[in-house]
Amino acid sequence: MGVKVYGATMSTCTARVLLCLEEMGAEYELVPIDFSTGEHKQPAHLARNPFGQVPAFEDGALILYESRAIARYILRKYKSSGGDLLKEGSLEESAMVDLWLEVESQQFNPAIGPIFYQIFIFPRFGNVPDQAVIDTNLEKLCKVLDVYEARLSKTKYLAGDFFSLADLSHVPLLHYFMATPHASVVNSRPHVKAWWEGVSSRPACKKVTAAMPASA
Amino acid sequence: MGVKVYGATMSTCTARVLLCLEEMGAEYELVPIDFSTGEHKQPAHLARNPFGQVPAFEDGALILYESRAIARYILRKYKSSGGDLLKEGSLEESAMVDLWLEVESQQFNPAIGPIFYQIFIFPRFGNVPDQAVIDTNLEKLCKVLDVYEARLSKTKYLAGDFFSLADLSHVPLLHYFMATPHASVVNSRPHVKAWWEGVSSRPACKKVTAAMPASA
Repeated sequence: MGVKVYGATMSTCTARVLLCLEEMGAEYELVPIDFSTGEHKQPAHLARNPFGQVPAFEDGALILYESRAIARYILRKYKSSGGDLLKEGSLEESAMVDLWLEVESQQFNPAIGPIFYQIFIFPRFGNVPDQAVIDTNLEKLCKVLDVYEARLSKTKYLAGDFFSLADLSHVPLLHYFMATPHASVVNSRPHVKAWWEGVSSRPACKKVTAAMPASA
Repeated sequence: MGVKVYGATMSTCTARVLLCLEEMGAEYELVPIDFSTGEHKQPAHLARNPFGQVPAFEDGALILYESRAIARYILRKYKSSGGDLLKEGSLEESAMVDLWLEVESQQFNPAIGPIFYQIFIFPRFGNVPDQAVIDTNLEKLCKVLDVYEARLSKTKYLAGDFFSLADLSHVPLLHYFMATPHASVVNSRPHVKAWWEGVSSRPACKKVTAAMPASA
């Protein structure tokens, strides 16, 4: 029996989980959660994720939430058939995967997230994007990308010369961001640009992002 | 040779790393970084942590940053002598540790963090705490703690009936928070209160928090 993901294809956190499943070649069912009817705040979904967010994940009796935790579970479970994206067999390599996954979560995400919300989410509710918020966070993002550029001039991927969860975890928000006029901050940094081209051309990435229309 | 932690005892992220080292009974040296002179933004420290933050961690040639990544490294390295706080030998148990560590990072921290800054950090720079920011985040924190109360009515610790990194990672900010008049939001939730009493009375916790004076 395959596993179930409760979420929405447009959701960046749902996409993080789907990317892991596709990379591992795992069988799964995506159960759509309808935000427009508030389904994510209904008891059935709150029983899966008490914070009323997506995604939630079901594997038999095991129910998980928080996309980066689900990602680790999937990558461990299917490692023998799908490949090793956590490198837990090596103390040093796993530390670098963890480090760059934390950088994604604590440095990259807080900068790129607000830009995504301003450009893609606010207009859906009839709001006008706040240019000052975009500018402030673009400045933050550029500083983060300077660190990435330095890192990626030494290694092919973030954690080392191997593709890992740390790279994959950047895909959902970068996919949307690259459809904005601000994509130049990635393209002007040659090593970040080459890294993104490599990551975004992976079959799993192409498949999952095809269901995430980035019409700003 | 022991490992080195570059940081400050008052820093909550430094404390997260020290708690892991103390739990594992590991030998280490704390190298103080002086924020008042901007030492964290000087080249020597930027070579250890390109984001100019604390802590940074050194184990021979290996240099790490991001406290939760360092924490995982320490807990893996010293597991055989210090105990198993990650449970990576079990697919289900490690998933619950990862889940509740992500909840700490993505739900708990964004609510309690701003309260800590308003009460403990802002006054150091001559600013008056903004009560509206405190109130908004207290409301968020209460919703998070409602989820914790429900969880801790079923299991002794967050990830299950075993102490793990997920519990430990809450200590630094909760330690400061419990010295504020808002501690009642913890004490009024019996299972959260009992959990905190258990966690904060651990020898490692007592030792590390003793160096973190919480005078609001």
